[in-house]
Amino acid sequence: PQTLRIAVMPGDGIGPEVVSEAVHCLESLREKHQLPIEWTRFPWPSHAWHEQYGEVMPEDALSQLEQYDAILLGALGDPGPMDDPERYLLPDSVSLAPLLQMRKGFDQWVCERPARLLPGARQYLADDRARDIDMLVIRENSEGEYVGQGGRLRQGTEHEVATQMEVFTRRGAERIIRYGFEQARLRAEARRGDGKQRKFPGRGGKLCESQVCVITKRNALRYWGDMYTEVFEEIARDYPDVATHHELIDAACMKFVQAPWTFDVVVASNLQGDILTDLAAVLSGGMGVAPSCNLNPDDPDMPSMFEPTHGSAPDIAGQGLADPTAMLFTTARMLEWLGRREPLLAKAGRELYDAVAADLAQNGGTRRDTRDIADSVLNRLK
Amino acid sequence: PQTLRIAVMPGDGIGPEVVSEAVHCLESLREKHQLPIEWTRFPWPSHAWHEQYGEVMPEDALSQLEQYDAILLGALGDPGPMDDPERYLLPDSVSLAPLLQMRKGFDQWVCERPARLLPGARQYLADDRARDIDMLVIRENSEGEYVGQGGRLRQGTEHEVATQMEVFTRRGAERIIRYGFEQARLRAEARRGDGKQRKFPGRGGKLCESQVCVITKRNALRYWGDMYTEVFEEIARDYPDVATHHELIDAACMKFVQAPWTFDVVVASNLQGDILTDLAAVLSGGMGVAPSCNLNPDDPDMPSMFEPTHGSAPDIAGQGLADPTAMLFTTARMLEWLGRREPLLAKAGRELYDAVAADLAQNGGTRRDTRDIADSVLNRLK
Ligand SMILES: CC(C)[C@H](C(=O)O)[C@@H](O)C(=O)O
Ligand SMILES: CC(C)[C@H](C(=O)O)[C@@H](O)C(=O)O
Repeated sequence: PQTLRIAVMPGDGIGPEVVSEAVHCLESLREKHQLPIEWTRFPWPSHAWHEQYGEVMPEDALSQLEQYDAILLGALGDPGPMDDPERYLLPDSVSLAPLLQMRKGFDQWVCERPARLLPGARQYLADDRARDIDMLVIRENSEGEYVGQGGRLRQGTEHEVATQMEVFTRRGAERIIRYGFEQARLRAEARRGDGKQRKFPGRGGKLCESQVCVITKRNALRYWGDMYTEVFEEIARDYPDVATHHELIDAACMKFVQAPWTFDVVVASNLQGDILTDLAAVLSGGMGVAPSCNLNPDDPDMPSMFEPTHGSAPDIAGQGLADPTAMLFTTARMLEWLGRREPLLAKAGRELYDAVAADLAQNGGTRRDTRDIADSVLNRLK
Repeated sequence: PQTLRIAVMPGDGIGPEVVSEAVHCLESLREKHQLPIEWTRFPWPSHAWHEQYGEVMPEDALSQLEQYDAILLGALGDPGPMDDPERYLLPDSVSLAPLLQMRKGFDQWVCERPARLLPGARQYLADDRARDIDMLVIRENSEGEYVGQGGRLRQGTEHEVATQMEVFTRRGAERIIRYGFEQARLRAEARRGDGKQRKFPGRGGKLCESQVCVITKRNALRYWGDMYTEVFEEIARDYPDVATHHELIDAACMKFVQAPWTFDVVVASNLQGDILTDLAAVLSGGMGVAPSCNLNPDDPDMPSMFEPTHGSAPDIAGQGLADPTAMLFTTARMLEWLGRREPLLAKAGRELYDAVAADLAQNGGTRRDTRDIADSVLNRLK
């Protein structure tokens, strides 16, 4: 079979520590199952690369990466100037730019961040129904608030005006909303297989086995809010088996804390999705366990990118303290994704997921080093 | 002394029910202390007014209201078309528009939403340090994401593009950030009076008695994010006694759930503040208890507006089930605010606040009607 190629990018802060454990797991799985994968380590994008070459990654970075089937990334970023003026200064907007460039350059228009409170993960909410949290937040990842258009007029003067343009296209809305409905169906199907159906009130009182909730702020940000609402209603007609729901972003954040177990699939814009997925990470037990991926579902020539939701956590970097769980879940998701091309990989992905979940269930809550956690997972893979 | 005039607007849904209890409390306090206040009830803005006259409020609404010293508003809005197509349809963007018109028209550039988990209020977080939550979220209320600029190009076609412009001014940033620092000082002073100092790490390791945290998304929305950061650093120099902190909106939402007791004053943009204040309401025990106000601190001719954070809750409207606590706290805040003109009112405001808090401490958590709660508060006022 064709060998699938992975670009491995440790990045900054705790990135290298957690990525190195991910690579150990990949090695172990490759050996065990003769997986047709290989990988190349990239020293960029990173703070260190910038220190040496004056840029966070080379100019031809994207065309180099285009040769790969997936990108596995640890974390980017170093604290900005506000934290410690003695450091080598690199604002977030520079060090994190490659994330946005890859998402845009490879048209990774789906960002998927599931939230489940797995056994062993920390429960932040008082209500024990938190144990039933099982949602998938789907973030629009290619446009909207993140187009980077705007500027500063009369910069630095008392008359300064800063603008930032949000640009949404109907095509962008359609593809992400349709993707949401497809995922809802797949989730219902999987639950049916597991005998764990859920019920959501659908149109006309009918009970449905899955739900899509679309998020906007249409009462204040009308233009794209109305467009999203219309597109949502239109596409919903193709999915009469899926219940529909609408929440405003402010109310959605509230309900994520008050009753997160009522959500199934949530579709949100780039910024609103960014916010909801950080909340979703907390609902799953915190940044230490929250996986993420940036997908291009329709162009097989474009690599998708797999990076945990967490950042580079410079405060604990280099001490072997970082929890690699999120990175390992993310790696499992990558294998599953590559499984669309080579089914062996999907199986390996599930195996890795199960091993990480089993470790969490057994040891979650005890204080452990990066290495301890990874070793426990590796032992389960053997 | 001069009589202060209040425009009372019940609005929609549960608005009339909770406002009527607020008016009972005002009556009781006026009688008891000979307060120099009077009020006028307005049937608009409301859904009903729209049904009759085709607009949510009259065209000269703002100039009528300008005659008043404060506006006390219940709640606005009826569910949009997605919920029940049989209803008289009025989208949120129409029924809620008066809120935004009043905020803009009277330049109510400060929205203040405190979060404290008072005894008796519901604790949503598992960690008992939640009992120490005591923060003030200050939302920029006059510009930013809410300027309403944008549109829909090629509306309804597959080539549609919807834009929404965010416009931030340095003047807008300066006044809200400075207001935040002033509030931080006042809070430190009040805590010192109560012997309940808090400590926050300030610049150079110095411990400060208060903190301002400014929120942006400067790593993705650079233009105003950078401007806010610069203005924040500049103004902070005038307040060496106040600790400073910066959070990105996504991380801030996360920390509001993971460690909300670490915040003191939080300053956020219009949309980001909208989101954070809904979370802050949950931290305080939910929408039933969360007060809010929209202030114009520098022009005494412009009325400020007092409305709870909650909406019109049409699902429970008309049944006498709504919790009036948030409305009564909001009314207390109004009296306190009017106390800048007439100190008697400030005293009455504190009395009302104490009565509502005492009721909550004694009866919070038991299921009670609107009337029961209000009566218990009224008894305490006698
Ligand atoms: C680092 C930042 C630009 C990024 C984002 O806002 O998308 C991050 O918060 C994320 O969620 O992946
Ligand atoms: C009703 C809506 C326009 C309003 C806002 O977004 O400001 C509300 O959510 C609020 O927080 O007061």
